Amino acid sequence: MEKNIKTNLIYQGKVLDLYCDDVSCDNGLEAKREIIHHSGGAGVLLVNDKKEILLIKQYRYAYNEELLEIPAGKLEKNEDSYKAALRELEEETGYKTEKLKPLGKIYPTCGYSNEIIYLYLASDFIKTQTNFDPDENISKKWYKLNEVLELIDNGTIKDAKTIVAVYRYLYLKK
Amino acid sequence: MEKNIKTNLIYQGKVLDLYCDDVSCDNGLEAKREIIHHSGGAGVLLVNDKKEILLIKQYRYAYNEELLEIPAGKLEKNEDSYKAALRELEEETGYKTEKLKPLGKIYPTCGYSNEIIYLYLASDFIKTQTNFDPDENISKKWYKLNEVLELIDNGTIKDAKTIVAVYRYLYLKK
Repeated sequence: MEKNIKTNLIYQGKVLDLYCDDVSCDNGLEAKREIIHHSGGAGVLLVNDKKEILLIKQYRYAYNEELLEIPAGKLEKNEDSYKAALRELEEETGYKTEKLKPLGKIYPTCGYSNEIIYLYLASDFIKTQTNFDPDENISKKWYKLNEVLELIDNGTIKDAKTIVAVYRYLYLKK
Repeated sequence: MEKNIKTNLIYQGKVLDLYCDDVSCDNGLEAKREIIHHSGGAGVLLVNDKKEILLIKQYRYAYNEELLEIPAGKLEKNEDSYKAALRELEEETGYKTEKLKPLGKIYPTCGYSNEIIYLYLASDFIKTQTNFDPDENISKKWYKLNEVLELIDNGTIKDAKTIVAVYRYLYLKK
């Protein structure tokens, strides 16, 4: 356990807030904890009748790279993750579903962020109009499951939520 | 693509630095990008002769929870991930190896951090003295592979690097 002594807000942003708290540890020592506060995320593994998976290619400034990811987005403050997953799915892909199966939740960087990413599976969906977020530059494509596994194996897919969602699906499918 | 217009350092910390950069997007619009700069991490899945996996129970301030994780730690600036993995393994568990097999790398939170976590497998190791980091409060235990898979399934294991490492091992073992 670590006990909060003092909460210090460093920066309040659009995507994240940064705190550097003073804490007291079990051993009696005091320490600083630099922690990102984030409202969380929701991602959807979309699998069609041919067992193909929809991946989005999206430029990510943090890595200066285009990454292959499942459709996902940030939760609004205190938003339900299921509702956010439905919204992001439609916004990013133009597909709509009324039934999401939970694939679990992950803590992506437990050392310095309180973000939780909720993962879902959608296998029953319909096409609506595509409504891309104007701030994002994304393209989408269906991949065979074996292709996706190969892309994880060869290091092309690096995004943690995408890898976990694919493996969770594979594991639960058995 | 997004082109950097101006790099703005907001906070320089011990674990992370925060930037809020001005960028120009493909669509001509300008935007802000709040990005954590992090030196990266390395984690090791330790598997013994009985196919048991060593997990560490560690309090994480960001979640105010004890989490089950593979041994892992932060890279020193520009440190080689292989070397960091060897060091963290010995520091956190008291086990030493000379042979790590790469299990891939993950981008844990690609929307706002440039952290890369490098994952390794160690199946050939010896016991040395345990040398816990005085800032951390950790305990360790061996779990059967099936137990670990059950702990992922029931949501007890939530740490992304741990889940990816276990599933990568399971997948490559076949």
